[in-house]
Amino acid sequence: MPSPVASMELLARMRRGDAVALGRLISRAEAGVEEARAALAEVYKASGRAHIVGITGVPGSGKSTLVSKLVQQVRRDNRRVAVIAIDPSSPFSGGAILGDRIRMSELVLDPGVFIRSMATHGSTGGLAHAALAAADILDVSGFDMIMIETVGVGQDEVEIARASHTTVVVSAPGLGDDVQALKAGILEIADIHVVSKCDRPDANRTITDLKSMLALAASLGEKPVWQVPVVATSSETGQGIGELVATIDEHRSVHQGHPLGKERLRHIAEYRALKTAEDLLRSRFAASRGTRLAELVERISRRELDPFAAAETLLNNAAI
Amino acid sequence: MPSPVASMELLARMRRGDAVALGRLISRAEAGVEEARAALAEVYKASGRAHIVGITGVPGSGKSTLVSKLVQQVRRDNRRVAVIAIDPSSPFSGGAILGDRIRMSELVLDPGVFIRSMATHGSTGGLAHAALAAADILDVSGFDMIMIETVGVGQDEVEIARASHTTVVVSAPGLGDDVQALKAGILEIADIHVVSKCDRPDANRTITDLKSMLALAASLGEKPVWQVPVVATSSETGQGIGELVATIDEHRSVHQGHPLGKERLRHIAEYRALKTAEDLLRSRFAASRGTRLAELVERISRRELDPFAAAETLLNNAAI
Repeated sequence: MPSPVASMELLARMRRGDAVALGRLISRAEAGVEEARAALAEVYKASGRAHIVGITGVPGSGKSTLVSKLVQQVRRDNRRVAVIAIDPSSPFSGGAILGDRIRMSELVLDPGVFIRSMATHGSTGGLAHAALAAADILDVSGFDMIMIETVGVGQDEVEIARASHTTVVVSAPGLGDDVQALKAGILEIADIHVVSKCDRPDANRTITDLKSMLALAASLGEKPVWQVPVVATSSETGQGIGELVATIDEHRSVHQGHPLGKERLRHIAEYRALKTAEDLLRSRFAASRGTRLAELVERISRRELDPFAAAETLLNNAAI
Repeated sequence: MPSPVASMELLARMRRGDAVALGRLISRAEAGVEEARAALAEVYKASGRAHIVGITGVPGSGKSTLVSKLVQQVRRDNRRVAVIAIDPSSPFSGGAILGDRIRMSELVLDPGVFIRSMATHGSTGGLAHAALAAADILDVSGFDMIMIETVGVGQDEVEIARASHTTVVVSAPGLGDDVQALKAGILEIADIHVVSKCDRPDANRTITDLKSMLALAASLGEKPVWQVPVVATSSETGQGIGELVATIDEHRSVHQGHPLGKERLRHIAEYRALKTAEDLLRSRFAASRGTRLAELVERISRRELDPFAAAETLLNNAAI
């Protein structure tokens, strides 16, 4: 078996435009390969140029189709665009189910487009770290816009969509009476609201409901720097797709260099530090299974020790 | 303002059957009140009697209605039953949206029933810790069965449903062609599968699909101690509700005292220790904002420091 290529070498190749090296480096970030850390640290420090756009919405909101239309639209300006799609994993194959990804197949032959599906892996965690490290890699690799698509249900998934420069929340008509974003608790994370499938007759109701909610929210606070817009799109007719890309671009230009934009970058930095610390804690915890930590777990399961006391012991030993 | 009642005093009152004290103690666990820690540690050590049942499924699968029917069924045996329902939060009120909870209102007057809705709080985390601490409290308070209902999308939400003695995954006909549990990555966490709304004509298709998937999975491994059943229920006609409660009880009696059951308790203990450590890390991180950690975040956002190096510094200082 040949020895694996060093991650630093993959990084160098990627910078010379090697798409295979790009994919492999992302895989190493996703798998949490220890050897890749130095390369990923270098990548992080070199990143910060691309526009990271989080796109989220409840299942059935038409996110994936919208994303494929956005990709085509952004390509018209000759910008390079990448998609990181975070999908539930298939329990039998261990991989992500293609499903909606397949309709993006028309795009995969375009070298200016990169699409990557990431599985949530059930219980292993580390999703935020992997997705955001992948975004760093794509950024350094020269992609101008990186869309991170997550399902808008689930604490981690919502936080990942939020850890971007611009967050788009997608709702669709006909998924019930409620404002979906409100019910899912993601109304307030949107920089831009999209009502997809606006060719449907019941779309106006959804648009009106969303606008009323936003007006109510706005009436409670001061006049904001950015008024959250509602953009109606149709992946069927193409309506609103150009407007949405323009609105995404405008959101960035308003915030870039503005104190609010800087504040957001600090929040993202804080989120990443914390998530990475949690991952590190998890891997140290996993590594010490079978040793004295197994005894700790045994004592918790026998209820001699409560989880809080165990957690304090864990953290106090995490530095070792 | 009167000084607040000590949590140890609330615990003593709760043990004497005071439902108000019970509710207040759960609120303190949910809010992560530091003063409550000693009481919660005592609660944890005294717990372990109740049957914790995780119930999960994709949005629209009819989980909430099913749960209310299960509560009524369990009450027929005169067992005390509690429900912890984990709901997305309303961004404006800060509280959980009642929605499906309302139809449970017929149950709230029964002192043998306790229903609590918990918000996911967007980004604050600590959900698993709060839900499982609430289950401990209800256990010690004398509830025989505690159902934890979560939405079956989202890493945390799925893990919480899994951190129970018996995990029930609910699917419904008519939510698309795919096996929903497979698409959501929750097929393999089920001890029991439920197809709700089995009065609908398209239910047989869903049942057949699920059974085929399970047969395929079973053919790949050895004969298990517990063969995962598919129970068809209808909240409309009441069909299958009694069978489901019997199956839940049977799952417990097969696993109690069995090595597999003990292994599961160890997994739950491990999960709780890790989640609690993450919470602790998060709160220490939050507490040190504005001090030298703010500088760390600033350096990450300026890309002088990568998140991994920052995380190592964080963990190495977490014991302080």
